[in-house]
Amino acid sequence: MTEHIGDAELSAAGEVIGDRNIHDRDLGWLKSSDYLVAEVTTPSLGVGYEIGKATEWGKPVLCLYRAAEGRLLSAMIAGSDRVTLKEYQSANELNQIFEHYFRSQ
Amino acid sequence: MTEHIGDAELSAAGEVIGDRNIHDRDLGWLKSSDYLVAEVTTPSLGVGYEIGKATEWGKPVLCLYRAAEGRLLSAMIAGSDRVTLKEYQSANELNQIFEHYFRSQ
Repeated sequence: MTEHIGDAELSAAGEVIGDRNIHDRDLGWLKSSDYLVAEVTTPSLGVGYEIGKATEWGKPVLCLYRAAEGRLLSAMIAGSDRVTLKEYQSANELNQIFEHYFRSQ
Repeated sequence: MTEHIGDAELSAAGEVIGDRNIHDRDLGWLKSSDYLVAEVTTPSLGVGYEIGKATEWGKPVLCLYRAAEGRLLSAMIAGSDRVTLKEYQSANELNQIFEHYFRSQ
């Protein structure tokens, strides 16, 4: 998730900037960040793409996955040695996961 | 799609090799290839991840997309200047798309 999720001001702007601009803006954000935290419960080309870039750029990647029956995480994410994978069941667990993860960095 | 899709012998083997091995094997295949051709109609973390890697490694990427109402391709794929995006409606069109694409390379 990028920081505009949940930001009322940014969401309200609702400007149409086009795919190329979205791509370049989001990769710019990724490039300037220290970590990538990705929610990977739902299949997504864009999230997979950013994880591919981040691991290539040497950024630590924390992936959050809500396991459920009949669902299987892609081996490209689960099997990447540059990805730390944390399973969770409810958003209440996230603070603890973040604390543990970032303290160990 | 990797070459084991549709290969009866490879599929029949059905060996369990684990996520790390799948990841490393698939990235090895990608690294040794000249092009990546990716079907991007269905959201997929693994496909997005490989497109992220391939564009980072300077490989030409051809993405095939079956457009439909109510469906929108991720801007990270549609907006990448290292991706050639071709829309199609039926598999019959693919030969022509491949011929046109690879002749222009």
